[in-house]
Amino acid sequence: MSTPIQINGATRLIGIIGDPIVQVKSPAVYSQLFAERGLNVVMIPLHVFWDSIDAVVAGLDGIANLDALIVTAPYKTHLLRMADTLGPAAACVGAVNALKKGSDGEWHGDLFDGAGFVAGVRKKGYALSGRRVHMFGAGGAGGAIAHALALAGVQSIRLSDPHLKRVADVCAAIGRTLPGFDIAPKGENDAPYDFVINASTVGLGGGAGLPGELGSLSSEVLVGEVNMTAAGTELVRLAQARGCQWVDGRDMHAGQIDQLLAFLFPA
Amino acid sequence: MSTPIQINGATRLIGIIGDPIVQVKSPAVYSQLFAERGLNVVMIPLHVFWDSIDAVVAGLDGIANLDALIVTAPYKTHLLRMADTLGPAAACVGAVNALKKGSDGEWHGDLFDGAGFVAGVRKKGYALSGRRVHMFGAGGAGGAIAHALALAGVQSIRLSDPHLKRVADVCAAIGRTLPGFDIAPKGENDAPYDFVINASTVGLGGGAGLPGELGSLSSEVLVGEVNMTAAGTELVRLAQARGCQWVDGRDMHAGQIDQLLAFLFPA
Repeated sequence: MSTPIQINGATRLIGIIGDPIVQVKSPAVYSQLFAERGLNVVMIPLHVFWDSIDAVVAGLDGIANLDALIVTAPYKTHLLRMADTLGPAAACVGAVNALKKGSDGEWHGDLFDGAGFVAGVRKKGYALSGRRVHMFGAGGAGGAIAHALALAGVQSIRLSDPHLKRVADVCAAIGRTLPGFDIAPKGENDAPYDFVINASTVGLGGGAGLPGELGSLSSEVLVGEVNMTAAGTELVRLAQARGCQWVDGRDMHAGQIDQLLAFLFPA
Repeated sequence: MSTPIQINGATRLIGIIGDPIVQVKSPAVYSQLFAERGLNVVMIPLHVFWDSIDAVVAGLDGIANLDALIVTAPYKTHLLRMADTLGPAAACVGAVNALKKGSDGEWHGDLFDGAGFVAGVRKKGYALSGRRVHMFGAGGAGGAIAHALALAGVQSIRLSDPHLKRVADVCAAIGRTLPGFDIAPKGENDAPYDFVINASTVGLGGGAGLPGELGSLSSEVLVGEVNMTAAGTELVRLAQARGCQWVDGRDMHAGQIDQLLAFLFPA
């Protein structure tokens, strides 16, 4: 029997803001976690369209019992402007997925998508150190994961994205933040990879298809996927068929829980 | 075993806005009622200071899954401006305690404090028709109760308030809205009253004192009190000692539930 969620006049609020929002699991997952920890806090979905986002954010700043915001698509880059200070991943990638109001009323923003992905890999017991990574997708998720993987000790990252400027931007940002780390656009004659990651939207919402040319995909290759479906994306099903170790969006979200909790409620 | 409150990405929100807000019972009472009716809706407290109220209200208007607001002190008059249309009690009194967004995005405001008071009296089985009312307090609560009592068929209302302009304003408003109804400032030689109501802040938060000269207060007099404390206000304890029928703020809030539910979720 899980601890019941209670709401009363003293309840503190954490919003999760995005468009669409009905699909997000966080309000149920985190509200339950807060209840189990005896915190009088709930996470509420906030469905906001583009033409209202700035007014809503200005308004949320004035709700004295709203202590934090989780940010999801399409606002992770836009809401960077709400932060007075930024953590290292947010500063490197230029996006936030969590904002917390300090006792001084200032907002601190950070980005846990990459750290969550890394934690998800580690929770499954898979090694990261020394991996040669090939990642599809150099958008917000790809940038965040590249930053976290570099910190986690992978050997190199090669990026593929039809938007070549995105690839250049991520390489430049990681280069500025972590000088000397080996990150570059994917080349023709790269050494074999042992960690293939899809951080693109291919497979999002159960869509078919693979993100691109996967190479041999032998059973030694670790496969990462940011998307999630009940049956697994096409990439995850292929990884399973080949006997590869794999993680997907569910692992990434599970991996993010401890870090978000520590961000929201520091010990 | 009560139905557990659940929150997920599809949860609809109703806010209750005020300062202070920690003391309000509505988030617990209504969130539980919504759960028992199978509605994916919660009522959340929104603590907002005066210097933020206009920005917050502009922001709340942009949250697509926030369908309604309950308004409590000190914003019942101020948030009249948020309403595109008004129900009769709100229009008469010039205050709102409930705002609901229509499918067209327009906000409809109404005031259920008076109707809740009347329903609370009726729930206890006490007669209203033909009563001669003496009411202390001609602020927002007094005005709302006067409007509802006039509609409920009392014979007359006499008002006492140290702010004489408030008395004049309520009499004028009721006179405009319900022409011919017998409402006036309390006079020296009025006929005896058989319904004495405290709609002032005397007794608020457990404070001591009676709202003013109560007359004979025989056991035939019905006593109404808008405030509530666990032990009863001084007026309620006096009514009990005299053997009077009485209602207090708890009855008023209980009486308001059915009407607010019908406003929020029309059949």
